[in-house]
Amino acid sequence: MRVPDHIGIIPDGNRRWAESKGLSKEQGYTHGLSPGVKLLRLCKEVGVNEVTYYGFTTDNTERPPKQITAFRQACVDAVEMLANEDASLLVIGDRQADEFPDELESYTEERQPFGNNEIKVNFLVNYGWKWDLNSLSQADEVSRRKLKNQLNSNQVSQVDLVIRWGNRRRLSGFLPVQSVYADFYVVDEYWPDFEPEQFYEALEWYDKQDITYGG
Amino acid sequence: MRVPDHIGIIPDGNRRWAESKGLSKEQGYTHGLSPGVKLLRLCKEVGVNEVTYYGFTTDNTERPPKQITAFRQACVDAVEMLANEDASLLVIGDRQADEFPDELESYTEERQPFGNNEIKVNFLVNYGWKWDLNSLSQADEVSRRKLKNQLNSNQVSQVDLVIRWGNRRRLSGFLPVQSVYADFYVVDEYWPDFEPEQFYEALEWYDKQDITYGG
Repeated sequence: MRVPDHIGIIPDGNRRWAESKGLSKEQGYTHGLSPGVKLLRLCKEVGVNEVTYYGFTTDNTERPPKQITAFRQACVDAVEMLANEDASLLVIGDRQADEFPDELESYTEERQPFGNNEIKVNFLVNYGWKWDLNSLSQADEVSRRKLKNQLNSNQVSQVDLVIRWGNRRRLSGFLPVQSVYADFYVVDEYWPDFEPEQFYEALEWYDKQDITYGG
Repeated sequence: MRVPDHIGIIPDGNRRWAESKGLSKEQGYTHGLSPGVKLLRLCKEVGVNEVTYYGFTTDNTERPPKQITAFRQACVDAVEMLANEDASLLVIGDRQADEFPDELESYTEERQPFGNNEIKVNFLVNYGWKWDLNSLSQADEVSRRKLKNQLNSNQVSQVDLVIRWGNRRRLSGFLPVQSVYADFYVVDEYWPDFEPEQFYEALEWYDKQDITYGG
């Protein structure tokens, strides 16, 4: 089986899940925490080398304050839970902004190894595609080969497979440069309803794709 | 019905279609010409304001020479056919490179109105996402709001819906910045087997999507 080297995860549908359970929207986020850890363990089992989670984005700051607080806290909790796994962790996002949680500062400088350091994990927090690309303008001369190195997210490698939960079929600003050739798989269920079968089905689908890179 | 303002078209599957008909791969491209015109007319009918066709890309230059020649010629023919419609045409791509067809030079400077000029049509020829983004590094100071204006493809507006024919679920480098929030619809059939129903189904699907822009 051809296993993707790097998987991007868009864990969408927390608020819709909460509503469907009769909860208030902001109560959905905490139910997305344990799926993140379960998924990471599955990725290690099948031999994935790198996983990137789409957490809080600069676009999300338009949401009601209660939701923003809950979403940011869930991102902090998620990173701290992932730091208990065998993984090397990096948090990527605009940490100059007030919205960036202080608790995650220490994860932003360089990739931090935890446990047996078996897999790379990137967590996007206060990430924005504009923020990511803005750094290109700071470079003196960007050759075609070096473009990726100049991104604010330059420590994130090319994404092979994006899996989005919650039925929507769009990237919503997720790593536009690294995802140019990513295969895009959509799970209809909301993220808090994560099941291992959804992940395995995505892998089976990916295995059947013909990767050409335009050739 | 909520009609997308700007639709991106990835007309994929010409070579696979040719093979399925017992033709050589490069013979597929000419069968993709009339679908392009049919699609444009449907877009005008339903009130779409802008259409972008994904033609020849810089990644495609790895293909066998016979295929490259046929694909480039098909792009030239497609643009000349579209110039007979009521549309304002713009060809976008790296025209400094040898691969850029001389015949299309005149379409690259500014948008050219034809007939009743009812719809904007962009045709990507020798386009590459790296080429597109490289211009960001030439800008003195790129504010968040101005980022899109600095792209080589700055005359192309935000894409609302991408429709890809030929069953693959990836953008393959198609306008990464303009497509950050695009909804992505995949048609299983190959592009030369284009049918109006496929387009209408994509529009119906798009109408049901909840557009939030992260909010």
